[in-house]
Amino acid sequence: MTDRLWLSLFPDRLPESIHSPVETARAELEGFPDLHVALRETDGPLTWEKDGDAECLSGQGQDLLRAVYGRIFSHLLSEPFEPVSTPSFSLRMINCWDNLDGSVERGYSGRSLFFEGGKLSYDRDRIRFLGRLLASVGINCICINNVNVLHEAQRLMEDLLPETAALADLLRPFGVRLMLSADFALPLRHGIATADPFSPEVQAFWANTCREIYRCIPDFAGFLVKADSEHRPGPFTYGRNHADGANMLARALKPFGGVVIWRAFVYNCQQDWRDTSTDRPMAPYLTYTPLDGQFDDNVILQVKNGPYDFQVREPISPTLLAMHRTNLALEFQLAQEYTGHQIDIYAMPGLFREVLDDLRGTAIPAIAGVSNLGRDKNYTGHPFAALNLFAYGLFALNREADPEEVTEQFVRLAYPSLNTEGAASLTRLLMRSRGIYEKYTSPLGLCWMVVPGLHYGPSPDGYEYQSWGTYHRADRNAVGIDRTGQGTGYVLQYPADLQARYADPHACPDNMLLFFHRLPYSFVMRDGRTLIQRIYDDHFEGYEETEAMQKELEKLLESLPDEDARICRERMQLQLSNAREWRDVINTFFHRLSGAEDARGRKIYA
Amino acid sequence: MTDRLWLSLFPDRLPESIHSPVETARAELEGFPDLHVALRETDGPLTWEKDGDAECLSGQGQDLLRAVYGRIFSHLLSEPFEPVSTPSFSLRMINCWDNLDGSVERGYSGRSLFFEGGKLSYDRDRIRFLGRLLASVGINCICINNVNVLHEAQRLMEDLLPETAALADLLRPFGVRLMLSADFALPLRHGIATADPFSPEVQAFWANTCREIYRCIPDFAGFLVKADSEHRPGPFTYGRNHADGANMLARALKPFGGVVIWRAFVYNCQQDWRDTSTDRPMAPYLTYTPLDGQFDDNVILQVKNGPYDFQVREPISPTLLAMHRTNLALEFQLAQEYTGHQIDIYAMPGLFREVLDDLRGTAIPAIAGVSNLGRDKNYTGHPFAALNLFAYGLFALNREADPEEVTEQFVRLAYPSLNTEGAASLTRLLMRSRGIYEKYTSPLGLCWMVVPGLHYGPSPDGYEYQSWGTYHRADRNAVGIDRTGQGTGYVLQYPADLQARYADPHACPDNMLLFFHRLPYSFVMRDGRTLIQRIYDDHFEGYEETEAMQKELEKLLESLPDEDARICRERMQLQLSNAREWRDVINTFFHRLSGAEDARGRKIYA
Repeated sequence: MTDRLWLSLFPDRLPESIHSPVETARAELEGFPDLHVALRETDGPLTWEKDGDAECLSGQGQDLLRAVYGRIFSHLLSEPFEPVSTPSFSLRMINCWDNLDGSVERGYSGRSLFFEGGKLSYDRDRIRFLGRLLASVGINCICINNVNVLHEAQRLMEDLLPETAALADLLRPFGVRLMLSADFALPLRHGIATADPFSPEVQAFWANTCREIYRCIPDFAGFLVKADSEHRPGPFTYGRNHADGANMLARALKPFGGVVIWRAFVYNCQQDWRDTSTDRPMAPYLTYTPLDGQFDDNVILQVKNGPYDFQVREPISPTLLAMHRTNLALEFQLAQEYTGHQIDIYAMPGLFREVLDDLRGTAIPAIAGVSNLGRDKNYTGHPFAALNLFAYGLFALNREADPEEVTEQFVRLAYPSLNTEGAASLTRLLMRSRGIYEKYTSPLGLCWMVVPGLHYGPSPDGYEYQSWGTYHRADRNAVGIDRTGQGTGYVLQYPADLQARYADPHACPDNMLLFFHRLPYSFVMRDGRTLIQRIYDDHFEGYEETEAMQKELEKLLESLPDEDARICRERMQLQLSNAREWRDVINTFFHRLSGAEDARGRKIYA
Repeated sequence: MTDRLWLSLFPDRLPESIHSPVETARAELEGFPDLHVALRETDGPLTWEKDGDAECLSGQGQDLLRAVYGRIFSHLLSEPFEPVSTPSFSLRMINCWDNLDGSVERGYSGRSLFFEGGKLSYDRDRIRFLGRLLASVGINCICINNVNVLHEAQRLMEDLLPETAALADLLRPFGVRLMLSADFALPLRHGIATADPFSPEVQAFWANTCREIYRCIPDFAGFLVKADSEHRPGPFTYGRNHADGANMLARALKPFGGVVIWRAFVYNCQQDWRDTSTDRPMAPYLTYTPLDGQFDDNVILQVKNGPYDFQVREPISPTLLAMHRTNLALEFQLAQEYTGHQIDIYAMPGLFREVLDDLRGTAIPAIAGVSNLGRDKNYTGHPFAALNLFAYGLFALNREADPEEVTEQFVRLAYPSLNTEGAASLTRLLMRSRGIYEKYTSPLGLCWMVVPGLHYGPSPDGYEYQSWGTYHRADRNAVGIDRTGQGTGYVLQYPADLQARYADPHACPDNMLLFFHRLPYSFVMRDGRTLIQRIYDDHFEGYEETEAMQKELEKLLESLPDEDARICRERMQLQLSNAREWRDVINTFFHRLSGAEDARGRKIYA
C-alpha cells in the first residue's frame, strides 16, 4: 500500500511503539536528520530556541507536533512554513459521517476507515497514518461517527466503548482527540421513559454515560449533536429549547473537560412548496439568535458556512455574525456533496478565504470540516481532493492564510516530481477549478438545481415541488426568491454593511444575485449583459474552460505518479461529461422558460 | 388468516389431497350442494348435459374447473355467469416480477408469495388459494419470477429446480401451468463462452436444460424472455436478431410442448435527451415488424398494450396491428406502477375494453397480465385492486366482456354484505375511478410526468433530461411531441383508419391529443376551450371528483368488512393528498411556463 497524500513524502511507517506526541515528534524527526532539530522534554507550552546550528523545541501535545511538521514542510519546500504560534481556532475538528455498517453518508472515497458490519473494523496502520495526516495540518479532534446516529451507532457509547477507546489510543500520539456523535434519544434505549433534558433521570443517565466514557477515554473531546433536524430526535419533542438540550449534555461533560458541539441545522424539512412565506435559509438565525447568551461555556454552536447546506454558492450564514455571546464553530463540508463528488475538481481554499473574510472581526473558537476521507487507497478518492483537507487545516490554524500559497504548498509537497513550471501550472489549474465548477452548475447563486438525493448532475426542477424548502420558482418571466425587505426579509438578518451589499440588485455581487433577488430574465447587469445572457454565457464558458482544463491537466499527468495520473484522467473525462450535461440542461431549461435566444447563436437544445 | 377477495365466499380451505383439476372441481362442488351439479369422469373436451334437475359436467383440465366456478358464480349472483365455451385467448398468463430475495419489482402488495432470502419460500395454503383464485377466472399459466432475472433467479432452472417443481405440483390441480423467466445469458454461467443462439454448444445447453426441466415439471409452460432490453443480455450481443434468439429457445422447448414468450420491449434506454430524431414509442414496431413471419410457431411475441410502458393513457401499440404472421400476446400491467400503486383506486375494466376494441379483428392467441399480487393478507394491497385481476381473467376469456357488468359482478361477489343500492354505488365509483385518476395526473395523453424511479406522484420535468426517451419538451409556447408525418412519423406505423383518427389534432381524441401532437397552449379544442384551460380544468375537476369519491366511499365502508374498510379509508386519504399534489404541481408547472391565468380564477400557486 502506497498511501498518497502530501504525507507520501514521509518514511513509510511510524513505529508501533509511539504512545505520545513527544514520541511521535521524535520518530518523525528521525526521518529528517538534515533538519538539525532537537527536542527537549519539558512539560508546558511550546518554545523553541537556537542552540548553535540546531534548533531545540520543547512543549507538549499537538503544539509540539505541529512545530515539528512545520519544520519538515519548511525543509521540503525550502521556504518558511507555518509561522503561526497561536492557532486562529483552538478546536479544529474533522466530522466523519461514517455509519457502523461501513457506509459513509456523502462519502466519495470508499467505505468507512473505522467501521464495517456493525462494529469497529480498521487497519491500525491506516489509523496511525490518519493521525499523522491530521496532526501535520493541526487538526486536533475527530468525530468518527455520523451526526445522523444510525445503524446502532449508539453502541459506541455502550458495549462498543472499549473498542472505541482502543481507537482513541491510536490517535492520541498525534494529539487528535476523539469525539462521538450522540443520539439525543439515547436514554430511551436504556429503559428511561423520556429524553427530556429537564428530567433528573435523564440528567443522571448522561452523567453516568460520561463517567463511563471518560473512564475509558480520559481525553475524550465531547459530543457532536444534530437534534430536531431532518427527523432526528431533540429537545423540541419535550417542549424544551436547544439551549436546554445542549446545556444538559454540557453539564454532564463539564466535570471531565468535554464540550458539546451542537449543530445549528434546524429547519422545516416538511415544508409545503406552495408556502411562499417560509424561507428556509432564515431558519437557523430564527431558531438560535434568541438563545444567544443562554448556552453554557462548554457548548459550541456549530454553524454551516452558509444558511442553506453547502451549496456551490451561498452568502455567509448570518447566524455566524449574530451570536456574540455564544461559542461558535464554523462548519465547512470537505466532502464534495454538492461540488462534484470528488470526481470533478473543486479546490476549496478560495472558499475558505472568502468565508473568513466575511467573518473578519468575529471571534470564533472552533472550526469543523465534514470529512472527505475514506478507505480508498489515496483516502480522498480524487488525489487532488486531498488539497481541501490540507488547506482546511492550514486555514484553521491561520485565518489569514492565502489560498494560492496554500495550494502551491500542497502541490509541491504532494508532487515533488513536478518541475517549477509544472507546479505553477497545477496550482493555477486548482485555483481556477472552483470558479469553473460554479460556472457550469449553479447560475448566479441559484441553489439546488441538482439531482435530488444524489446531488450530482443537473435537475433544474428536481427539488422544486419537494418538501425541503429549496425553491427557485423560475417561470417564463423571472427567477429566484426575493429575499430583500420587500420579500422574505432574509437579508435583514445581516449587519448593516452586508445588508447594503446584498439588498440592492445593482450592488449585489453577481455570483449571489439570484440568491437574494427575484429578477426578470431581461434584467441588465452591471456589465451590460442581460441576466439570461449571463446564464448562457457562464454555462458555455464553464464547459469550454473544463475542456481547457482537461488539456492542461493532460500535460501534467506524465509527471505524476501513475496511479494518480490514471485516476485524474478517468475522472476528468467524467467531469467533462458532467459539465456538458449541466451546460445543456440549464441552458435548455431557461431557454424553454424565457424564450430568449443566445446573443452569440450558440447551440441551445430544444 | 381470512383472505379477502371474491373467493372469500368459498369454504376456507381445499383438502391437501387434491392432485388434479377433477379432484379440485369435486372439492369445490362439495361446498355448494345446492348447485345440483355432478361430475362425470371422462377424458376429453368439456361437455355438459342436463340430467333431470342436476347438471352433469365432464371434461378435463382447467376447462372443467372453469365451468364449475362459473356455475358457482352464477349461483352466488343469481344470474348467468361466464357463458363462453371457447376462451378468446388460449394462453392466459400472469407474469410475476418476483425476485428470489423476496422483493417484487413494482409490487405494491407486500413481498413475494414465492420467494424469500434467495430461495423458494411459501405458504402451501396460500399457493393453493392462489391457484383457486387464478382458475376461477380462467388464468392457466403463471410465470413466477421477474423478467429481469436478478438475484440468482437463474438457479430456478439449476439447483432449485426440484423446489420449483414442487411449486408447480401445488398449482397443477388448478390447471395453472408454471412458466419461468429465462436469462438469455444462462449458458455463460455454465462454462460456455457464449450465449450466441447460433452456437451448437449453446443450442445443446438449452436442449439439455429443457430436458431437465420437463423431467421435473412435465407440463412446464415455457420461458418468458426480456432480451436486449434495459441492460438485459440478448441476441444483439452476438449480432443476431430477435427471431434468431427466440427460435433457438423455441426449438429447445418444442419437443416438450413448451413455448417461448418473447417480450417486444426493446428501445434505447441510453437516449440523449438532446436527440429529437429518436422517438421511443416507435422502437417496438421498428424492431419487430421486419421479423414478421420469421418466428417459429411456438414463439409468442408479447407486446404491451401501448407503445411506451403502461402509462395512464397510451394509444394502442401499432406493433399489435402489424404482425399478422406472428403469434402475439397482449400484455397488460395489473400492478399499478403508473396508476396509483394500489393506493389510489384505478379500475382497469374500461382499459381492457378500449384496448380490445382497438384490436377488433386481430387474432391474438395469448394474453399476459403483470401480477398485482403479493404476500399482503388480501393479496392485492388495496382490496379493490382485486377487481383488476378478476376482470383481467374475464376479459381474457371473453374479448367482448362488458366492463360495467364485470365490475358489478366483482362487487357483488366480493361484498355480498352490500345491498343492491350499495353495490350499484360501489360499481359506479369503481367505473369512474380510472377517469378521475387520469384527470388529476397526466394531461391529455402526456406521459411520464411522474417521480422518476418511484412512479408515484408528480414530477413534470422528472424524466425530461434523462436517458429513457420519455420527453414532453414543454416550453413557454407549446407542449408535446409532434408524432405526425411532419414530426417523428410515429403515426404512420398505424393502419389507415387509425392514422386518420390520430394524425389530425382536430380529429384526435382529446385524451390522446398530446401523445400525438405538439400544440400551443392557445390551441382551441373542439369544445371551444384552449388547451391550457383544459389542462387546468381537468386537474381541478380531478381533485374535486376525488373528494366526492371519498365521500361516497365513506358511506359504503360501514357495509364492508372492518379490515377492508380500514384499508380503503386510509388509502383514500392518501389518494386525496396525491390528487391535490398532482393538481397543484401540474397546474403550477404549466402556469409558470405559459403565463396563462385560469379562466375561472381558481388558485394556481406561484
